[in-house]
Amino acid sequence: MRGEFSFIERFLSAFPRARVPLGPGDDCAVLPPSRGQTCVTTDAVVEDVHFTRAHFSPEDIGHKALAVNLSDLAAMGATPRWFVCAVALPRDFPGRELSRLARGMAALAREHRVALVGGNFTSARELSLTITAAGELKRPALTRGGGRPGHLLYVSGTLGEARLGLNLLREGRRRGAAIQRQRRPQPRVALGLLASRFASAGMDLSDGLAQDLGHLCEASGVGAEVELSHLPMSSAVRQALGWEGALEGGEDYELLLAVPPEQVAAFERACARAGERVTAVGLLTRARRRVLRDPQGRLIPPPPGFDHFRVRPPVD
Amino acid sequence: MRGEFSFIERFLSAFPRARVPLGPGDDCAVLPPSRGQTCVTTDAVVEDVHFTRAHFSPEDIGHKALAVNLSDLAAMGATPRWFVCAVALPRDFPGRELSRLARGMAALAREHRVALVGGNFTSARELSLTITAAGELKRPALTRGGGRPGHLLYVSGTLGEARLGLNLLREGRRRGAAIQRQRRPQPRVALGLLASRFASAGMDLSDGLAQDLGHLCEASGVGAEVELSHLPMSSAVRQALGWEGALEGGEDYELLLAVPPEQVAAFERACARAGERVTAVGLLTRARRRVLRDPQGRLIPPPPGFDHFRVRPPVD
Repeated sequence: MRGEFSFIERFLSAFPRARVPLGPGDDCAVLPPSRGQTCVTTDAVVEDVHFTRAHFSPEDIGHKALAVNLSDLAAMGATPRWFVCAVALPRDFPGRELSRLARGMAALAREHRVALVGGNFTSARELSLTITAAGELKRPALTRGGGRPGHLLYVSGTLGEARLGLNLLREGRRRGAAIQRQRRPQPRVALGLLASRFASAGMDLSDGLAQDLGHLCEASGVGAEVELSHLPMSSAVRQALGWEGALEGGEDYELLLAVPPEQVAAFERACARAGERVTAVGLLTRARRRVLRDPQGRLIPPPPGFDHFRVRPPVD
Repeated sequence: MRGEFSFIERFLSAFPRARVPLGPGDDCAVLPPSRGQTCVTTDAVVEDVHFTRAHFSPEDIGHKALAVNLSDLAAMGATPRWFVCAVALPRDFPGRELSRLARGMAALAREHRVALVGGNFTSARELSLTITAAGELKRPALTRGGGRPGHLLYVSGTLGEARLGLNLLREGRRRGAAIQRQRRPQPRVALGLLASRFASAGMDLSDGLAQDLGHLCEASGVGAEVELSHLPMSSAVRQALGWEGALEGGEDYELLLAVPPEQVAAFERACARAGERVTAVGLLTRARRRVLRDPQGRLIPPPPGFDHFRVRPPVD
């Protein structure tokens, strides 16, 4: 009775029927023609790399798998439209946990009105979820490569929370704002859409500001100066991790944006009206190096960022 | 030096640059508006479930990961356009094997003129590749649900080869036509496109004819009669596995098609002209049960199909 098809039905039952020409159940989904350009991204969460079953509820895992993909769409200024989900399940994975996982994913999908149109189940030694998500562009995509010298750098929300949450989980803590940020990242979809009216470049902060800013600078052919004293951090992060936490902590899923000076006033007004918190943390420079300035005005080199293959130990 | 980014570069270098507004390297790919409907599918191949590194070369693995997805597009009559590839790699996976894997995938992509537009790398305990592929429809999609009583059932190519290949690999054999079919399934893209002009229903044979025919019948609300003596098999399969091999052997990635009687002559002519081998193996019936008829005219019940969670042991 533990067949592939009962898993599929169990999973699908958490989601509303997709309003597309053909949803899950056939060899492919069929989607309507798209008037505008489409953004597509694929991202996976893997057991013991991006989550552990000891520290994440099934709902958390389902949420996070979709959130990291919606964050990529947000970063381009796209409106999420559909996604497919490939699930790899250990043979002993309990069916009721799969239902909870689907419900966590479905709640976030509902919030962003994005439709599950297809998927795949396979067995595997470890649980993983690989999602491909697509969004519609109404304006030109916000890429990493549009930044120019003199453009201001903004980040949304606060930084370092997800890393602090990870540390607290490892210490045995189970509740609190930082842990919630680690378990349930919130993709900045509305901000991405807003930013696409003003910003010259953008990306999401999945690997930590230090590393992600490097990607933006490289793609834009510029350098950057970041004022450490401007980095938005909660007092808990400031106390526990200091600047390094904000710079190196991955998985915040906030947005990093470059805004031309002539757009800054309108961008900040629009953010304030929309209730979106953004903070100017520096600017792009012609000199192609990244400079961090501490509150005493001293230059410090950018620390290495987050890289699954290099520096990140699994949660354990 | 074994960072995520060197893996990405190594992988991408096997593929030509995608002719889309924005290819790999940003948060999302950007695709042009689509005039027609789009088919989307996602499918994964997992180490020790769909392949073993002992029996599959890296090129085989890359080929198979893409082939199983293109086969789903073929089944709907779609022309492959783009795909994204999420790679989960054990930490000790050699970089040169990743290059070979990418080359195997790229060769098949080139053959079908389908563009790699994005991807993701993560570490994991076992190697897996999860691809999402999209194709363009020029006619209405060939679904599983369009079959009607009286429509003829066709299968392409020969059946049971991939299962025979799997058995031979387990016995220690390394070469031969059946092993090649297991390692390098050929998605029937041209046939799917052709069939969409004539057929009422279609799907690909990934789980074995017995099980897949059940899905087509269920979706179409019909039953079926299959003549075992008509099943196309090589003499090697006939000898080694008998009818059961053709019925139960998964992973052939041939097409199963239902064709209305008034289209049969034109369909067969078009297949002959195109050099596509198809064989009429039975017909759909009003009575909603599946009947197999052996060469002596005796009825036999359909055997259980291939199900990762139920019957399929890993290759070992």
